[in-house]
Amino acid sequence: MNRFRIDISYDGTAYAGWQIQPNATTVQELIEKAIKQITQETAKVHGSGRTDQGVHARKQVAHFDLTGKFTTSSLLNGLNAVLPHDIRITKVKKTIQNFHARRSVSAKEYRYFIWNSPILPPFLRNYRVHIKKNLDIKAMRKAAYLLTGRHNFTAFSANPGREVESAIRTLSVLKIVKRGHEIVIIARSEGFLYKMVRSLAGFLIRVGEGSVPPSIAKTILSSKQRTAHVPTAPPHGLFIWNVWY
Amino acid sequence: MNRFRIDISYDGTAYAGWQIQPNATTVQELIEKAIKQITQETAKVHGSGRTDQGVHARKQVAHFDLTGKFTTSSLLNGLNAVLPHDIRITKVKKTIQNFHARRSVSAKEYRYFIWNSPILPPFLRNYRVHIKKNLDIKAMRKAAYLLTGRHNFTAFSANPGREVESAIRTLSVLKIVKRGHEIVIIARSEGFLYKMVRSLAGFLIRVGEGSVPPSIAKTILSSKQRTAHVPTAPPHGLFIWNVWY
Repeated sequence: MNRFRIDISYDGTAYAGWQIQPNATTVQELIEKAIKQITQETAKVHGSGRTDQGVHARKQVAHFDLTGKFTTSSLLNGLNAVLPHDIRITKVKKTIQNFHARRSVSAKEYRYFIWNSPILPPFLRNYRVHIKKNLDIKAMRKAAYLLTGRHNFTAFSANPGREVESAIRTLSVLKIVKRGHEIVIIARSEGFLYKMVRSLAGFLIRVGEGSVPPSIAKTILSSKQRTAHVPTAPPHGLFIWNVWY
Repeated sequence: MNRFRIDISYDGTAYAGWQIQPNATTVQELIEKAIKQITQETAKVHGSGRTDQGVHARKQVAHFDLTGKFTTSSLLNGLNAVLPHDIRITKVKKTIQNFHARRSVSAKEYRYFIWNSPILPPFLRNYRVHIKKNLDIKAMRKAAYLLTGRHNFTAFSANPGREVESAIRTLSVLKIVKRGHEIVIIARSEGFLYKMVRSLAGFLIRVGEGSVPPSIAKTILSSKQRTAHVPTAPPHGLFIWNVWY
Protein backbone atom coordinates (compact mmCIF):
# COMPACT_ATOMS: atom_id res chain seq x y z
CA MET A 1 0.00 0.00 0.00
CA ASN A 2 1.38 3.39 -1.02
CA ARG A 3 0.13 6.59 0.55
CA PHE A 4 0.05 9.74 -1.56
CA ARG A 5 -0.34 13.32 -0.44
CA ILE A 6 -1.86 15.77 -2.92
CA ASP A 7 -2.14 19.57 -2.88
CA ILE A 8 -5.34 20.79 -4.52
CA SER A 9 -6.51 24.21 -5.70
CA TYR A 10 -10.15 24.69 -6.59
CA ASP A 11 -12.73 27.28 -7.49
CA GLY A 12 -15.65 26.35 -5.23
CA THR A 13 -18.27 28.26 -7.24
CA ALA A 14 -19.73 25.22 -9.00
CA TYR A 15 -19.52 22.76 -6.09
CA ALA A 16 -21.51 21.79 -3.03
CA GLY A 17 -18.29 21.99 -1.05
CA TRP A 18 -15.52 19.47 -0.42
CA GLN A 19 -17.28 16.55 1.19
CA ILE A 20 -19.16 13.86 -0.70
CA GLN A 21 -22.94 14.12 -0.31
CA PRO A 22 -25.95 12.75 -2.13
CA ASN A 23 -27.49 14.63 -5.09
CA ALA A 24 -24.76 17.26 -5.39
CA THR A 25 -21.33 17.44 -6.99
CA THR A 26 -18.42 17.86 -4.61
CA VAL A 27 -14.67 18.23 -4.98
CA GLN A 28 -13.85 15.08 -2.99
CA GLU A 29 -16.21 13.07 -5.19
CA LEU A 30 -14.63 14.28 -8.44
CA ILE A 31 -11.12 13.55 -7.19
CA GLU A 32 -12.13 10.03 -6.11
CA LYS A 33 -13.71 9.46 -9.53
CA ALA A 34 -10.59 10.78 -11.26
CA ILE A 35 -8.38 8.40 -9.22
CA LYS A 36 -10.65 5.51 -10.14
CA GLN A 37 -10.53 6.51 -13.78
CA ILE A 38 -6.76 6.68 -14.06
CA THR A 39 -5.74 3.86 -11.66
CA GLN A 40 -8.79 1.55 -11.71
CA GLU A 41 -8.52 1.58 -7.92
CA THR A 42 -11.20 2.71 -5.48
CA ALA A 43 -9.48 5.04 -3.02
CA LYS A 44 -11.00 7.17 -0.32
CA VAL A 45 -9.62 10.71 -0.41
CA HIS A 46 -9.12 12.26 3.05
CA GLY A 47 -9.00 16.05 3.04
CA SER A 48 -7.43 18.31 5.67
CA GLY A 49 -10.99 19.39 6.43
CA ARG A 50 -14.19 20.11 4.62
CA THR A 51 -14.98 23.37 2.88
CA ASP A 52 -18.57 24.59 2.49
CA GLN A 53 -20.45 25.20 -0.73
CA GLY A 54 -18.90 28.09 -2.65
CA VAL A 55 -15.71 28.24 -0.56
CA HIS A 56 -12.46 28.18 -2.56
CA ALA A 57 -9.09 26.56 -2.03
CA ARG A 58 -5.80 28.15 -2.91
CA LYS A 59 -4.27 25.11 -1.21
CA GLN A 60 -6.17 22.18 0.21
CA VAL A 61 -4.29 18.99 1.16
CA ALA A 62 -5.52 15.39 1.01
CA HIS A 63 -4.17 11.84 1.11
CA PHE A 64 -5.17 8.47 -0.34
CA ASP A 65 -3.77 4.96 -0.64
CA LEU A 66 -3.13 2.92 -3.76
CA THR A 67 -2.04 -0.70 -4.02
CA GLY A 68 -0.55 -0.44 -7.52
CA LYS A 69 2.71 1.28 -8.34
CA PHE A 70 2.20 4.76 -9.73
CA THR A 71 4.72 7.55 -10.18
CA THR A 72 3.86 10.91 -8.71
CA SER A 73 4.18 12.57 -12.12
CA SER A 74 1.81 10.08 -13.79
CA LEU A 75 -0.73 10.75 -11.04
CA LEU A 76 -0.31 14.53 -11.31
CA ASN A 77 -0.70 14.57 -15.09
CA GLY A 78 -3.38 11.89 -15.16
CA LEU A 79 -5.58 13.49 -12.53
CA ASN A 80 -5.32 16.95 -14.10
CA ALA A 81 -6.14 15.46 -17.51
CA VAL A 82 -9.48 14.07 -16.29
CA LEU A 83 -10.49 16.66 -13.66
CA PRO A 84 -12.43 19.78 -14.70
CA HIS A 85 -10.37 22.97 -15.03
CA ASP A 86 -11.80 24.45 -11.84
CA ILE A 87 -10.06 21.72 -9.81
CA ARG A 88 -6.30 21.38 -10.17
CA ILE A 89 -3.88 19.04 -8.46
CA THR A 90 -0.81 21.22 -7.91
CA LYS A 91 1.44 18.63 -6.25
CA VAL A 92 1.62 14.86 -5.66
CA LYS A 93 4.05 13.36 -3.15
CA LYS A 94 4.61 9.85 -1.81
CA THR A 95 4.26 10.05 1.93
CA ILE A 96 4.68 7.87 5.01
CA GLN A 97 1.95 5.45 6.00
CA ASN A 98 1.03 7.34 9.16
CA PHE A 99 0.61 10.73 7.49
CA HIS A 100 -3.02 11.78 7.74
CA ALA A 101 -4.25 14.88 5.91
CA ARG A 102 -6.64 15.82 8.72
CA ARG A 103 -5.10 14.36 11.88
CA SER A 104 -1.51 15.37 11.12
CA VAL A 105 -2.33 19.07 10.53
CA SER A 106 -0.20 21.40 12.64
CA ALA A 107 -1.78 24.66 11.46
CA LYS A 108 -4.12 26.08 8.84
CA GLU A 109 -4.58 29.48 7.30
CA TYR A 110 -7.78 30.87 5.81
CA ARG A 111 -8.15 34.20 4.04
CA TYR A 112 -11.40 36.07 3.66
CA PHE A 113 -11.50 38.61 0.81
CA ILE A 114 -13.65 41.74 0.79
CA TRP A 115 -13.97 44.25 -2.08
CA ASN A 116 -14.67 47.57 -0.41
CA SER A 117 -15.64 50.00 -3.15
CA PRO A 118 -18.90 50.94 -4.93
CA ILE A 119 -18.20 48.75 -7.98
CA LEU A 120 -16.99 45.14 -7.88
CA PRO A 121 -14.86 44.29 -10.95
CA PRO A 122 -16.71 41.57 -12.94
CA PHE A 123 -13.71 39.23 -12.84
CA LEU A 124 -13.78 39.11 -9.02
CA ARG A 125 -17.51 38.54 -8.58
CA ASN A 126 -17.10 34.93 -7.40
CA TYR A 127 -14.04 35.57 -5.23
CA ARG A 128 -14.74 38.71 -3.22
CA VAL A 129 -17.55 39.74 -0.93
CA HIS A 130 -18.72 43.14 -2.08
CA ILE A 131 -19.20 45.80 0.58
CA LYS A 132 -19.89 49.21 -0.90
CA LYS A 133 -19.80 51.23 2.30
CA ASN A 134 -16.35 52.26 3.46
CA LEU A 135 -15.23 49.96 6.28
CA ASP A 136 -13.40 51.29 9.33
CA ILE A 137 -10.16 49.30 9.20
CA LYS A 138 -8.92 50.65 12.52
CA ALA A 139 -12.02 49.38 14.31
CA MET A 140 -11.72 46.01 12.56
CA ARG A 141 -8.07 45.76 13.65
CA LYS A 142 -8.98 46.55 17.26
CA ALA A 143 -11.60 43.80 17.27
CA ALA A 144 -9.22 41.36 15.55
CA TYR A 145 -6.63 42.07 18.22
CA LEU A 146 -9.12 41.19 20.98
CA LEU A 147 -9.97 37.90 19.24
CA THR A 148 -6.37 36.84 18.67
CA GLY A 149 -4.97 34.21 21.02
CA ARG A 150 -6.48 31.38 23.07
CA HIS A 151 -10.21 31.66 23.68
CA ASN A 152 -13.40 29.67 23.80
CA PHE A 153 -14.84 30.42 20.34
CA THR A 154 -18.31 28.94 20.85
CA ALA A 155 -19.87 32.32 20.02
CA PHE A 156 -18.00 32.34 16.69
CA SER A 157 -18.99 28.94 15.42
CA ALA A 158 -22.02 27.14 14.08
CA ASN A 159 -22.71 23.73 15.42
CA PRO A 160 -25.14 21.76 13.28
CA GLY A 161 -25.83 19.06 15.84
CA ARG A 162 -22.18 18.25 16.40
CA GLU A 163 -20.63 17.59 19.77
CA VAL A 164 -17.16 19.02 20.11
CA GLU A 165 -15.06 18.22 23.17
CA SER A 166 -13.85 21.75 23.49
CA ALA A 167 -14.41 25.02 21.68
CA ILE A 168 -11.10 26.40 22.92
CA ARG A 169 -8.82 27.30 20.03
CA THR A 170 -5.74 29.44 19.60
CA LEU A 171 -5.90 32.03 16.84
CA SER A 172 -2.17 32.61 16.37
CA VAL A 173 -2.93 35.15 13.65
CA LEU A 174 -6.01 37.24 13.01
CA LYS A 175 -5.10 40.28 11.01
CA ILE A 176 -6.58 42.70 8.52
CA VAL A 177 -4.61 43.66 5.43
CA LYS A 178 -5.77 46.45 3.13
CA ARG A 179 -4.46 46.79 -0.43
CA GLY A 180 -6.34 49.35 -2.48
CA HIS A 181 -10.01 48.42 -2.49
CA GLU A 182 -9.28 44.95 -1.16
CA ILE A 183 -9.49 44.02 2.50
CA VAL A 184 -8.19 40.61 3.52
CA ILE A 185 -8.85 38.93 6.85
CA ILE A 186 -6.06 36.44 7.55
CA ALA A 187 -6.79 33.77 10.17
CA ARG A 188 -4.29 31.14 11.27
CA SER A 189 -4.77 28.47 13.91
CA GLU A 190 -3.89 24.90 14.81
CA GLY A 191 -7.59 24.19 14.34
CA PHE A 192 -10.87 25.93 13.57
CA LEU A 193 -14.46 25.27 14.66
CA TYR A 194 -17.24 24.80 12.13
CA LYS A 195 -17.88 28.06 10.19
CA MET A 196 -15.50 29.87 12.53
CA VAL A 197 -13.72 31.96 9.87
CA ARG A 198 -16.97 33.08 8.22
CA SER A 199 -18.35 33.96 11.68
CA LEU A 200 -15.23 35.97 12.52
CA ALA A 201 -15.47 37.68 9.12
CA GLY A 202 -19.18 38.38 9.60
CA PHE A 203 -18.50 39.99 12.97
CA LEU A 204 -15.46 41.97 11.77
CA ILE A 205 -17.49 43.35 8.85
CA ARG A 206 -20.21 44.49 11.30
CA VAL A 207 -17.51 46.22 13.34
CA GLY A 208 -16.09 47.82 10.17
CA GLU A 209 -19.55 49.08 9.24
CA GLY A 210 -19.83 50.71 12.66
CA SER A 211 -22.81 48.59 13.72
CA VAL A 212 -21.02 47.43 16.87
CA PRO A 213 -17.94 48.71 18.71
CA PRO A 214 -14.74 46.61 18.57
CA SER A 215 -14.76 46.17 22.36
CA ILE A 216 -17.87 44.01 22.15
CA ALA A 217 -15.59 41.19 20.92
CA LYS A 218 -14.62 40.45 24.54
CA THR A 219 -18.25 40.37 25.71
CA ILE A 220 -19.22 38.05 22.87
CA LEU A 221 -16.30 35.69 23.54
CA SER A 222 -17.11 35.39 27.22
CA SER A 223 -20.86 34.98 26.60
CA LYS A 224 -20.18 31.72 24.70
CA GLN A 225 -23.47 32.47 22.95
CA ARG A 226 -23.89 33.19 19.32
CA THR A 227 -25.83 36.43 18.77
CA ALA A 228 -27.03 38.58 15.88
CA HIS A 229 -23.73 40.47 16.10
CA VAL A 230 -22.09 37.40 14.58
CA PRO A 231 -23.60 36.76 11.15
CA THR A 232 -22.00 34.15 8.90
CA ALA A 233 -20.27 36.00 6.06
CA PRO A 234 -21.01 34.65 2.53
CA PRO A 235 -18.91 31.66 1.41
CA HIS A 236 -17.46 33.06 -1.82
CA GLY A 237 -15.06 35.43 -0.03
CA LEU A 238 -13.36 32.53 1.76
CA PHE A 239 -10.24 30.64 0.65
CA ILE A 240 -8.40 27.88 2.45
CA TRP A 241 -4.97 29.35 1.91
CA ASN A 242 -2.44 26.99 3.44
CA VAL A 243 -2.14 23.84 5.54
CA TRP A 244 0.97 22.96 7.52
CA TYR A 245 2.10 19.56 8.81
CA MET B 1 -31.11 65.07 -26.50
CA ASN B 2 -28.33 64.25 -24.03
CA ARG B 3 -25.39 62.10 -25.00
CA PHE B 4 -23.79 59.89 -22.36
CA ARG B 5 -20.46 58.14 -22.45
CA ILE B 6 -20.09 54.97 -20.38
CA ASP B 7 -17.04 52.89 -19.46
CA ILE B 8 -17.83 49.20 -19.21
CA SER B 9 -15.94 46.24 -17.79
CA TYR B 10 -17.14 42.73 -18.62
CA ASP B 11 -16.27 39.10 -18.31
CA GLY B 12 -16.92 37.81 -21.82
CA THR B 13 -17.14 34.12 -20.81
CA ALA B 14 -20.93 33.91 -20.90
CA TYR B 15 -21.54 36.12 -23.95
CA ALA B 16 -21.57 35.85 -27.72
CA GLY B 17 -19.43 38.98 -27.82
CA TRP B 18 -20.32 42.66 -27.78
CA GLN B 19 -22.56 43.12 -30.79
CA ILE B 20 -26.26 42.31 -30.86
CA GLN B 21 -27.09 39.21 -32.87
CA PRO B 22 -30.05 36.87 -33.13
CA ASN B 23 -30.37 33.83 -30.84
CA ALA B 24 -27.44 34.70 -28.58
CA THR B 25 -26.94 36.96 -25.58
CA THR B 26 -24.54 39.84 -26.09
CA VAL B 27 -23.19 42.64 -23.92
CA GLN B 28 -24.60 45.44 -26.12
CA GLU B 29 -28.05 43.83 -25.94
CA LEU B 30 -28.03 43.60 -22.15
CA ILE B 31 -26.91 47.21 -21.78
CA GLU B 32 -29.65 48.42 -24.15
CA LYS B 33 -32.21 46.38 -22.19
CA ALA B 34 -30.91 47.82 -18.91
CA ILE B 35 -31.20 51.38 -20.26
CA LYS B 36 -34.75 50.65 -21.39
CA GLN B 37 -35.60 49.20 -18.00
CA ILE B 38 -34.35 52.15 -15.96
CA THR B 39 -35.21 55.06 -18.31
CA GLN B 40 -38.15 53.67 -20.36
CA GLU B 41 -36.25 54.98 -23.40
CA THR B 42 -35.06 52.93 -26.35
CA ALA B 43 -31.45 53.92 -26.93
CA LYS B 44 -28.94 52.41 -29.30
CA VAL B 45 -25.62 51.80 -27.56
CA HIS B 46 -22.58 52.46 -29.77
CA GLY B 47 -19.43 50.71 -28.61
CA SER B 48 -15.82 51.67 -29.42
CA GLY B 49 -15.74 48.43 -31.41
CA ARG B 50 -17.01 44.91 -31.18
CA THR B 51 -15.38 42.16 -29.15
CA ASP B 52 -15.74 38.50 -30.15
CA GLN B 53 -17.36 35.72 -28.15
CA GLY B 54 -15.34 35.01 -25.00
CA VAL B 55 -13.22 38.18 -25.21
CA HIS B 56 -13.16 40.32 -22.05
CA ALA B 57 -13.15 44.03 -21.39
CA ARG B 58 -11.18 45.70 -18.65
CA LYS B 59 -12.39 48.93 -20.24
CA GLN B 60 -14.76 49.22 -23.16
CA VAL B 61 -16.34 52.58 -24.00
CA ALA B 62 -19.77 53.29 -25.49
CA HIS B 63 -22.21 56.16 -25.97
CA PHE B 64 -25.96 56.56 -26.19
CA ASP B 65 -28.55 59.34 -26.28
CA LEU B 66 -31.47 59.97 -23.96
CA THR B 67 -34.22 62.56 -24.29
CA GLY B 68 -35.14 62.64 -20.59
CA LYS B 69 -33.05 64.25 -17.88
CA PHE B 70 -31.00 61.72 -15.96
CA THR B 71 -28.09 62.29 -13.63
CA THR B 72 -24.90 60.36 -14.28
CA SER B 73 -25.03 58.83 -10.80
CA SER B 74 -28.62 57.62 -11.22
CA LEU B 75 -27.63 55.99 -14.52
CA LEU B 76 -24.50 54.41 -13.00
CA ASN B 77 -26.35 52.98 -10.02
CA GLY B 78 -29.47 52.07 -11.97
CA LEU B 79 -27.63 50.24 -14.75
CA ASN B 80 -25.45 48.31 -12.31
CA ALA B 81 -28.52 47.38 -10.28
CA VAL B 82 -30.17 45.67 -13.25
CA LEU B 83 -27.15 44.34 -15.18
CA PRO B 84 -25.71 40.91 -14.30
CA HIS B 85 -22.56 40.96 -12.15
CA ASP B 86 -20.31 39.98 -15.04
CA ILE B 87 -21.06 43.33 -16.73
CA ARG B 88 -20.28 46.50 -14.76
CA ILE B 89 -20.63 50.12 -15.75
CA THR B 90 -17.58 51.72 -14.14
CA LYS B 91 -18.22 55.32 -15.22
CA VAL B 92 -20.97 57.49 -16.72
CA LYS B 93 -20.25 60.96 -18.12
CA LYS B 94 -22.31 63.52 -19.96
CA THR B 95 -20.54 64.21 -23.22
CA ILE B 96 -20.77 66.53 -26.21
CA GLN B 97 -23.19 65.73 -29.03
CA ASN B 98 -20.46 64.99 -31.56
CA PHE B 99 -18.59 62.52 -29.37
CA HIS B 100 -18.79 59.08 -30.99
CA ALA B 101 -17.49 56.01 -29.13
CA ARG B 102 -16.19 54.42 -32.33
CA ARG B 103 -15.43 57.31 -34.67
CA SER B 104 -13.79 59.55 -32.07
CA VAL B 105 -11.27 56.90 -30.90
CA SER B 106 -7.68 58.13 -30.99
CA ALA B 107 -6.07 54.89 -29.78
CA LYS B 108 -6.86 51.51 -28.28
CA GLU B 109 -4.94 49.03 -26.24
CA TYR B 110 -5.51 45.29 -26.09
CA ARG B 111 -3.73 42.85 -23.80
CA TYR B 112 -3.41 39.15 -24.47
CA PHE B 113 -2.69 36.99 -21.42
CA ILE B 114 -0.82 33.68 -21.50
CA TRP B 115 -0.19 31.38 -18.52
CA ASN B 116 3.09 29.64 -19.27
CA SER B 117 3.51 26.87 -16.73
CA PRO B 118 2.40 23.21 -16.50
CA ILE B 119 -0.59 23.96 -14.24
CA LEU B 120 -3.12 26.75 -14.81
CA PRO B 121 -4.57 28.04 -11.49
CA PRO B 122 -8.32 27.26 -11.48
CA PHE B 123 -9.23 30.91 -10.84
CA LEU B 124 -7.58 32.01 -14.09
CA ARG B 125 -9.06 29.35 -16.36
CA ASN B 126 -11.35 31.78 -18.21
CA TYR B 127 -8.82 34.63 -18.40
CA ARG B 128 -5.52 33.10 -19.52
CA VAL B 129 -4.53 30.95 -22.44
CA HIS B 130 -2.65 27.99 -21.04
CA ILE B 131 0.62 27.07 -22.72
CA LYS B 132 2.52 24.41 -20.82
CA LYS B 133 5.71 24.41 -22.86
CA ASN B 134 8.23 27.08 -21.95
CA LEU B 135 7.99 29.96 -24.44
CA ASP B 136 11.10 31.71 -25.77
CA ILE B 137 10.46 35.30 -24.71
CA LYS B 138 13.52 36.63 -26.51
CA ALA B 139 12.30 35.22 -29.83
CA MET B 140 8.80 36.62 -29.20
CA ARG B 141 10.29 40.05 -28.49
CA LYS B 142 12.32 39.98 -31.70
CA ALA B 143 9.20 39.16 -33.72
CA ALA B 144 7.18 41.82 -31.87
CA TYR B 145 9.85 44.38 -32.69
CA LEU B 146 9.58 43.56 -36.41
CA LEU B 147 5.80 43.97 -36.30
CA THR B 148 5.84 47.28 -34.45
CA GLY B 149 5.20 50.39 -36.52
CA ARG B 150 3.33 51.13 -39.74
CA HIS B 151 2.62 48.09 -41.93
CA ASN B 152 0.01 46.47 -44.09
CA PHE B 153 -1.44 43.92 -41.64
CA THR B 154 -3.57 41.94 -44.12
CA ALA B 155 -1.66 38.76 -43.18
CA PHE B 156 -2.58 39.33 -39.51
CA SER B 157 -6.31 39.80 -39.90
CA ALA B 158 -9.38 37.79 -40.70
CA ASN B 159 -11.82 39.25 -43.14
CA PRO B 160 -15.23 37.62 -43.05
CA GLY B 161 -16.49 39.12 -46.27
CA ARG B 162 -15.68 42.69 -45.29
CA GLU B 163 -14.18 45.27 -47.57
CA VAL B 164 -11.74 47.54 -45.83
CA GLU B 165 -10.28 50.53 -47.62
CA SER B 166 -6.83 49.89 -46.30
CA ALA B 167 -5.13 47.30 -44.14
CA ILE B 168 -2.35 49.71 -43.21
CA ARG B 169 -2.20 50.29 -39.48
CA THR B 170 0.35 51.67 -37.07
CA LEU B 171 1.17 49.49 -34.09
CA SER B 172 2.64 52.12 -31.80
CA VAL B 173 3.23 49.47 -29.14
CA LEU B 174 3.64 45.72 -29.44
CA LYS B 175 5.49 44.41 -26.46
CA ILE B 176 5.86 41.29 -24.39
CA VAL B 177 5.86 41.54 -20.61
CA LYS B 178 6.71 38.55 -18.42
CA ARG B 179 5.77 38.43 -14.73
CA GLY B 180 6.33 35.02 -13.15
CA HIS B 181 4.34 32.45 -15.13
CA GLU B 182 2.35 35.15 -16.89
CA ILE B 183 3.22 36.49 -20.33
CA VAL B 184 1.31 39.52 -21.55
CA ILE B 185 1.24 40.77 -25.13
CA ILE B 186 0.44 44.48 -25.14
CA ALA B 187 -0.78 45.96 -28.43
CA ARG B 188 -1.63 49.62 -28.95
CA SER B 189 -2.77 51.29 -32.15
CA GLU B 190 -5.01 54.02 -33.52
CA GLY B 191 -7.01 51.17 -35.04
CA PHE B 192 -6.99 47.41 -35.43
CA LEU B 193 -8.20 45.10 -38.20
CA TYR B 194 -10.67 42.30 -37.51
CA LYS B 195 -9.08 39.61 -35.26
CA MET B 196 -5.73 41.38 -35.58
CA VAL B 197 -4.66 41.04 -31.93
CA ARG B 198 -5.57 37.35 -31.75
CA SER B 199 -3.70 36.80 -35.02
CA LEU B 200 -0.62 38.62 -33.71
CA ALA B 201 -0.87 36.60 -30.46
CA GLY B 202 -1.26 33.34 -32.39
CA PHE B 203 1.83 34.10 -34.43
CA LEU B 204 3.90 35.29 -31.44
CA ILE B 205 3.02 32.09 -29.55
CA ARG B 206 4.21 30.01 -32.53
CA VAL B 207 7.46 31.98 -32.48
CA GLY B 208 7.77 31.44 -28.71
CA GLU B 209 7.24 27.71 -29.18
CA GLY B 210 10.09 27.68 -31.70
CA SER B 211 7.86 26.57 -34.59
CA VAL B 212 8.95 29.52 -36.73
CA PRO B 213 11.88 31.97 -36.47
CA PRO B 214 11.10 35.59 -35.47
CA SER B 215 12.50 36.89 -38.77
CA ILE B 216 9.60 35.31 -40.67
CA ALA B 217 7.47 38.20 -39.38
CA LYS B 218 8.85 40.40 -42.16
CA THR B 219 8.15 37.81 -44.86
CA ILE B 220 4.59 37.32 -43.60
CA LEU B 221 3.90 41.07 -43.48
CA SER B 222 5.11 41.62 -47.05
CA SER B 223 3.27 38.56 -48.39
CA LYS B 224 -0.08 40.15 -47.42
CA GLN B 225 -1.35 36.57 -47.29
CA ARG B 226 -2.59 34.82 -44.21
CA THR B 227 -0.79 31.49 -43.73
CA ALA B 228 -0.76 28.60 -41.25
CA HIS B 229 1.97 30.47 -39.36
CA VAL B 230 -0.72 32.88 -38.21
CA PRO B 231 -3.33 30.95 -36.22
CA THR B 232 -6.01 32.90 -34.35
CA ALA B 233 -5.23 32.57 -30.63
CA PRO B 234 -8.24 31.61 -28.43
CA PRO B 235 -10.53 34.48 -27.36
CA HIS B 236 -10.41 34.02 -23.59
CA GLY B 237 -6.85 35.37 -23.27
CA LEU B 238 -7.86 38.70 -24.82
CA PHE B 239 -8.91 41.87 -23.00
CA ILE B 240 -9.76 45.25 -24.42
CA TRP B 241 -7.68 47.19 -21.96
CA ASN B 242 -8.09 50.87 -22.73
CA VAL B 243 -9.61 53.28 -25.24
CA TRP B 244 -8.40 56.83 -25.70
CA TYR B 245 -10.21 59.80 -27.23
